[in-house]
Amino acid sequence: MQEDIKASQSNIMTSTDTISFELEQSALQARRNAKWNQYDAGVIPAFVADMDFAVAAPIQAAIERIVRERDYGYPLRNGERADRFVAHAFVRRMKSRYGWEVSPDLVMPLADLVQGTYALILAFSEPRDGVILQTPNYPPFRETIQTTERQLLALPMRDDGSRHVFDMAELQKLVDQRTRIFVLCNPQNPTGRVFSRDELLALGEFAIAHDLIVISDEIHSDLVFPGQQHIPLASLGPEIAARTVTLNSATKSFNIPGLRCALMAFGTEALRNRFHKRIPLKLTGSANIVGVDATVAAWDECQPWLDAVMEHLLKARNRVKDVLAAEAPEIRFHAPEATYLAWLDCSKLGLSTSAFQFFLNHARIGFSAGETFDPDCAQFVRLNFATSMPILDEILDRMITATRQHHR
Amino acid sequence: MQEDIKASQSNIMTSTDTISFELEQSALQARRNAKWNQYDAGVIPAFVADMDFAVAAPIQAAIERIVRERDYGYPLRNGERADRFVAHAFVRRMKSRYGWEVSPDLVMPLADLVQGTYALILAFSEPRDGVILQTPNYPPFRETIQTTERQLLALPMRDDGSRHVFDMAELQKLVDQRTRIFVLCNPQNPTGRVFSRDELLALGEFAIAHDLIVISDEIHSDLVFPGQQHIPLASLGPEIAARTVTLNSATKSFNIPGLRCALMAFGTEALRNRFHKRIPLKLTGSANIVGVDATVAAWDECQPWLDAVMEHLLKARNRVKDVLAAEAPEIRFHAPEATYLAWLDCSKLGLSTSAFQFFLNHARIGFSAGETFDPDCAQFVRLNFATSMPILDEILDRMITATRQHHR
Repeated sequence: MQEDIKASQSNIMTSTDTISFELEQSALQARRNAKWNQYDAGVIPAFVADMDFAVAAPIQAAIERIVRERDYGYPLRNGERADRFVAHAFVRRMKSRYGWEVSPDLVMPLADLVQGTYALILAFSEPRDGVILQTPNYPPFRETIQTTERQLLALPMRDDGSRHVFDMAELQKLVDQRTRIFVLCNPQNPTGRVFSRDELLALGEFAIAHDLIVISDEIHSDLVFPGQQHIPLASLGPEIAARTVTLNSATKSFNIPGLRCALMAFGTEALRNRFHKRIPLKLTGSANIVGVDATVAAWDECQPWLDAVMEHLLKARNRVKDVLAAEAPEIRFHAPEATYLAWLDCSKLGLSTSAFQFFLNHARIGFSAGETFDPDCAQFVRLNFATSMPILDEILDRMITATRQHHR
Repeated sequence: MQEDIKASQSNIMTSTDTISFELEQSALQARRNAKWNQYDAGVIPAFVADMDFAVAAPIQAAIERIVRERDYGYPLRNGERADRFVAHAFVRRMKSRYGWEVSPDLVMPLADLVQGTYALILAFSEPRDGVILQTPNYPPFRETIQTTERQLLALPMRDDGSRHVFDMAELQKLVDQRTRIFVLCNPQNPTGRVFSRDELLALGEFAIAHDLIVISDEIHSDLVFPGQQHIPLASLGPEIAARTVTLNSATKSFNIPGLRCALMAFGTEALRNRFHKRIPLKLTGSANIVGVDATVAAWDECQPWLDAVMEHLLKARNRVKDVLAAEAPEIRFHAPEATYLAWLDCSKLGLSTSAFQFFLNHARIGFSAGETFDPDCAQFVRLNFATSMPILDEILDRMITATRQHHR
């Protein structure tokens, strides 16, 4: 196993003309991460949002420098605390990618986005207040709303036949006097929607009209396919920004979730101050130097790597789409506009168990279970297609075989 | 500079018979940490609690393994989440060192102890409630009490002529109906006291009598000099444990503060549940894998390194004591029973500025300023003596020269 890793890494190291990131299955199986150790060796994991890729060279170099220098003390970077260093990198990235001007003073460090969601819901609402969440959605967001004893107001993503859309009519019916927060996930997980300017403006106006805070999880914003454009909600104007807290992190797009580094950006100083009255800055902890240096390297230096990854992900997405359409058309699927996640509706298969359990038992694939995204979605699974083409083809083959045997 | 680091690191790597950790000044100056970059190059830093030492080989090996495998995904260790892995290491360490049995289910991850203090004060008190803090004390603890709008009840460490002791008589006068919390720092920073069983039992009885929660910061517990024994407060019995939350971390004794990994251990399930009603588990974030693996390596494998470091620190402490007694007896100093921190009373020098400012200007040493530990202590400085003997001797020489010139 160790030799496999070395071999595949030396391939990475020596490829100078192209950016290489795919890893052999043997190297993946040697990893100690959750993805490749949750199930027994016969199961191909396709669940947790790790990519089966090696990180970009500048990230590796930044981490190797810390390790080579054995410099694990209280960190400074450019004469500032490490959390300021990463805040400035976020500001640069938002400006260069979206023309969105964020003040670094409004950017605070977090370990992860779930922590940010807890902090924001606790700061901006009281128990039994309403929190709107589009469903299906990332399971920890559901859990956050329930654990904090807020009322989860589920706004279903409406399937318009070709994609999932923002259901403004339904939203109007949901809101009441005790509704305080809208949790936006854009690009949306698991449907992969990149909300349009019109959808976001409608949400913004709605939030203003009903005095809602919007928690805007934009962690998938780097993973948008050609033809779509991510728009940070807070960039739509000062009135919307004044009630928006943006959550972001390089961990998803640059494949470093174990390093724990995320940020929240408040739209205004007033909003930040209101937050800090309930949640003091240091209650959410401090940034670790490995996460900080890796994140700054990711945002400042790793776009070529991400471009190469996105080319691969586009091919992988289209492979899923084409193969399923040809070989298992009963599985309904709108190709995502962003993310490496495919939300597969298996309800026409007529399964007697959840779709997750069916594919685990009969195809030996570990998908994410649809019911964790929405209790009504037990006939859905989420497929993580951020893997090499041979592994993806094996996943698709196994799905098709299991589906055919079921129908026989 | 780079070459210096490599040279001193290869010295470390090749020393097999003895444990070597001292670093040359040139290697230290090449570091990017706060300690060696806060001041200009002419100033010797002796403030922030970083040791000028290379980390232990097993810590370095654990980090290098992650980096070599490029395994930065959502981590598992022994089939469990990373925070459980480090919780189990803490449980093993407490049992082997102190015979203290902690349930791993009562151990929660943190980024750092300041975060833990915020979380605990917010969970177990209301604004304007009283929080007792022994003074002088770690500046962030003062800040925590003030930021959360609690009332800081200062309990001075009483100087009995040979050391600082727990002032129970004063404590009786301080407490009132709105007192909720006692923040214990044991071993105490900056005085270096290791509280005796009798002192701790008296505190425990007092806490029971007045229904106080005790936040017991034990981060310096690994740094106890011969002749003293650290006793975890919660190990004194179930009644005391039922109101004690212990904070600890390997970052201080094993010199990895930039990696951000700490723990809090609740004395009982009831106490933990009471805490989580106010502060949900995930609000405090999640553990990063580098901090986790480094901490587990520290606690499980690095005691020989720490023993060697403690031998050095004992010599360094005695050097400070002997040199000051001989050459600058106006500086009053009780040698600490633990920590690598010397709390120096310079009030007999008759300075016209703070002692911190005097030594920064006239000796080019960057101490920690006494007034940040207690507004009344501007004539104190805290000296961090965890450095090589040549650097320590240079610090002492500069102090003595400046002191003599001042008196001339």
